[in-house]
Amino acid sequence: MTDIETYMLELGKQARAASREIGRATTAQKNSALLAIAKAIDSNRQGLLDANGADLKAGVEKGLNAALMDRLELTSERIDDMIEGLQQVAALDDPVGEISDLKYRPSGIQVGRMRVPLGVIGIIYESRPNVTCEAASLCLKSGNATILRGGSEAINSNQAIAQCIAEGLAEANLNQQIIQVVETTDRDAVGKLITMPDYVDIIIPRGGKSLIERISSDAKVPVIKHLDGNCHVYIDEKADLDKAVKVAVNAKTQRYGTCCTLESLLIASEVSSAVLPELVRQFAAHGVELRGCEESQKIAEGLLPATEEDWGAEYLAPILSIKIVAGVDEAITHINDYSSQHTDSIVTEDYHTAQRFLREIDSSSVMVNASTRFADGFEYGLGAEIGISTDKLHARGPVGLEGLTSQKFVVLGDGHIRQ
Amino acid sequence: MTDIETYMLELGKQARAASREIGRATTAQKNSALLAIAKAIDSNRQGLLDANGADLKAGVEKGLNAALMDRLELTSERIDDMIEGLQQVAALDDPVGEISDLKYRPSGIQVGRMRVPLGVIGIIYESRPNVTCEAASLCLKSGNATILRGGSEAINSNQAIAQCIAEGLAEANLNQQIIQVVETTDRDAVGKLITMPDYVDIIIPRGGKSLIERISSDAKVPVIKHLDGNCHVYIDEKADLDKAVKVAVNAKTQRYGTCCTLESLLIASEVSSAVLPELVRQFAAHGVELRGCEESQKIAEGLLPATEEDWGAEYLAPILSIKIVAGVDEAITHINDYSSQHTDSIVTEDYHTAQRFLREIDSSSVMVNASTRFADGFEYGLGAEIGISTDKLHARGPVGLEGLTSQKFVVLGDGHIRQ
Repeated sequence: MTDIETYMLELGKQARAASREIGRATTAQKNSALLAIAKAIDSNRQGLLDANGADLKAGVEKGLNAALMDRLELTSERIDDMIEGLQQVAALDDPVGEISDLKYRPSGIQVGRMRVPLGVIGIIYESRPNVTCEAASLCLKSGNATILRGGSEAINSNQAIAQCIAEGLAEANLNQQIIQVVETTDRDAVGKLITMPDYVDIIIPRGGKSLIERISSDAKVPVIKHLDGNCHVYIDEKADLDKAVKVAVNAKTQRYGTCCTLESLLIASEVSSAVLPELVRQFAAHGVELRGCEESQKIAEGLLPATEEDWGAEYLAPILSIKIVAGVDEAITHINDYSSQHTDSIVTEDYHTAQRFLREIDSSSVMVNASTRFADGFEYGLGAEIGISTDKLHARGPVGLEGLTSQKFVVLGDGHIRQ
Repeated sequence: MTDIETYMLELGKQARAASREIGRATTAQKNSALLAIAKAIDSNRQGLLDANGADLKAGVEKGLNAALMDRLELTSERIDDMIEGLQQVAALDDPVGEISDLKYRPSGIQVGRMRVPLGVIGIIYESRPNVTCEAASLCLKSGNATILRGGSEAINSNQAIAQCIAEGLAEANLNQQIIQVVETTDRDAVGKLITMPDYVDIIIPRGGKSLIERISSDAKVPVIKHLDGNCHVYIDEKADLDKAVKVAVNAKTQRYGTCCTLESLLIASEVSSAVLPELVRQFAAHGVELRGCEESQKIAEGLLPATEEDWGAEYLAPILSIKIVAGVDEAITHINDYSSQHTDSIVTEDYHTAQRFLREIDSSSVMVNASTRFADGFEYGLGAEIGISTDKLHARGPVGLEGLTSQKFVVLGDGHIRQ
C-alpha cells in the first residue's frame, strides 16, 4: 500500500469513529460548534488572507486563468459571507432524530421513521476555498462526519480554514476528526477517497462536469451528482403572453451563469407570431444572442440558425436557443429528450395542460408560470444547499440538510412478538 | 459490439421509451393490467407447470441441490400465491403523482414535492420463478418500466410467465415493452444490463450475498442492496424479563431462514444470571444451538464457546450467539461494530436507555420491546416488498412501492419571477 493509501485509510477510520460521536451530538452542541467556527474565522482573518495570498501567488506563477483566480480569491467580503453562512446553518432546524408517520399497526406495534445522518460524507471540490466552510457546516449540522478534499491550487487557504474549523470543534468539546481536510495535494488521495465503502458512505463532487463524470465513473460508493442544467421554458398556446415574456426574460437574464438559468425556449406555434417579436426585442435589449429553428427565423428577425447541438447545450452565457413546437405534446417530448432533468417550466393558463406538464416532465424541478431561476435551496425554503442533484435516487433537486440524511424505521412495542 | 450487447441495448431503449408511457398511466390502467396478468396466469396454469417441468427436469440433469430444486419448483399453490400477490398489489394505493408539503414561499410561489417513478428498473434474480411476477407487479404499480433477468435454471418458467404478463399488458392496452423478460441465459446479458446508465436507472439484485456483491461492485448504475441480516436483541438491565424471554425466543425461533431472524443475543451483566437459564431452557426446547462468550458459559450450562466469527455471522439456522455486556454502552458499540445494519432490538423499561438505543443504533430498523421478526413490508404497512435495503441512501429497510419511486419538486406560480 502506498503512503497516500495508508493516510486516506487512516482518515477514513477516524471519520467512521467520529461519525458516531457527531451522530448523537445534541442540536445545541452542533450549533455552538458552528458559531465557534465562525468566531475562529473572524479572529483569524489576517491568517486566512495571508494563506490565500500564497495560493494566489502560486496561481499567478502557474498561469491560472482569470476566472479560476477569481474563484480562488478570499476577500474580506467573502470571509464575511463564510461567517454569515455558518450563522445561517446554526439557525436552521436540526433534521436529525425527527420521527415521522409513527402509526399503530394491527399487530399492536408502532412503526415510524426517524431521520438519521448518512455517516461519513466525502466532498471533492475545485478552486473555491469557501466551499470548505460551507460543506463542512452543512455536514456537521446534519450529524455527519466529513472528509474534504479541495483543489491543489487552494491548499494553503483550505488548511487555514481547516485550522479554524478544528478550533471551533475543540471549543464545543467535539472531536476534531468530525471534519477532516485532506492535507495532501496528491491526486491518488481522490482515487482512494471514492473507493473506501467501509469508511465513506457518500461522495459529493462539486465542480465542473468533467470532474463529476470522472468521479461518478470511478467511485465505489454512491455519488450525489450535480450535472449540467439545460433548462427549458415552454410557452403554451394558452399562455398569458405578458406572463410568458416576463418569465422567459427573467429565467434567461436574471443571472447567466447559474445551473437553473433558461437555455432553451419552446413556443407553441399558435402563439409564436404574437409573442416572438416582443421576446426578440427584450432579449436584444439584454444583449442575448438568439439561435432559432427554421420556423422561428421566419417569424422574427435577428435569429441565428440553431443546430442540433444547441438543443442540448448549457451555455451559461447570454445565448438562448428557440424552437417553435406544435403544442404541449411536442414540448414534453423535446424536453424529456434534450433536458438535463434539472428545471423546466411551462407558461399556460390551461389547467389540464399544466397538470400534464407537471406530471410528465421528468426533471428535478417542474414549474408552472414561474421562472426557472427559483430552483434553489433558499427559494424552496430548504436553507443553504450543498448542490442541486440531477440524480433520481435519494436526493433530487436542491440538496440541503435533509438531503444529507436518511430515514430508518423505528418500531415501538411492549413485548410484542410475531405470530 | 456483440449480439448480446446489441440485444440488451435494444431492450434498454425500448424500456426507456415504455417508461414514459407507464409513468403517465392512470391508476385504473395499472390495476386493470395487474388483474389481467393474474387472469392470464390463472388460465395458463398447465402451460406454466409444463414449462416449469422442463426446468425441473434440466435441474435434475444438472444436479441442482434440493434447496435450489425447491425454490425452482412451481406448484399449483405457488401459482395461487402469484395470483393473490398480483391482486394485493392492485389493491395498494398508487404512490405516483402524490404531492406533499405544498407550501407558499415568501416570494409567492408554491413549492411541493411530487412522487414520481424512477424510470427503468433492472431486476436480477436467481432460481425462484415467482419473483418474475412479484417484481414485475411492484414495478408496474409504481409506474416503472422493468427489465427482468432471472436465473438460467428457470428460463422456461420465466418465459412462460413473461407470456402471461405480455397478455395482461395487451389486455389493458399497455405497451408490452413496459415489462421485458431477458430471453437469453448468456451471462454477458447481466454485465450489460448493469452498465447502461442511459437506459436503466436502478438495479435491484435479489439472491445470495455473492450475487449482490458482484453486481454492486460492477454496476455503473445505483444498486438497491439487500445484504445479510445479522440481527441483535439486547436485554437491558432494566428489561422486563418476561418480555425479554418472549421477544428473544420469538425473534430466533419464529422462522430461522429470514433476514430479520435474531442471530446474536446480548444480555446486560446485571440480569444475566436471572434470565439466561430460562432462555437456555427455552432455546433447548426449540433445538437451538447456543454459542456463548466465556461469561455466559459460566452462568448457564450447555453453551458452546463462541468465536470472533460468531459475532458477525448470519446463521439462517437454529444457531444463536450469546454475549454478556456491561450495559447499553457496550451493547450499542458491539451492535454498531458487528451488525449488518438490518434490524436490532432492545428490551428495556427505561425511557432514557430506549431513546438512546433508538437514536444511536445505525440500522435500517431499530426496535424497542419488539421481535426483530416484525421487520417486513406487510408488518410495517408498506404492502409487498421487493427487498429489505441495508443501504443508507434512498431506500432503507423494507422497499415497497414508495421505495421504487422518487420525489421531484413542483413549483406553482402565476407569472412569478426572481428579483
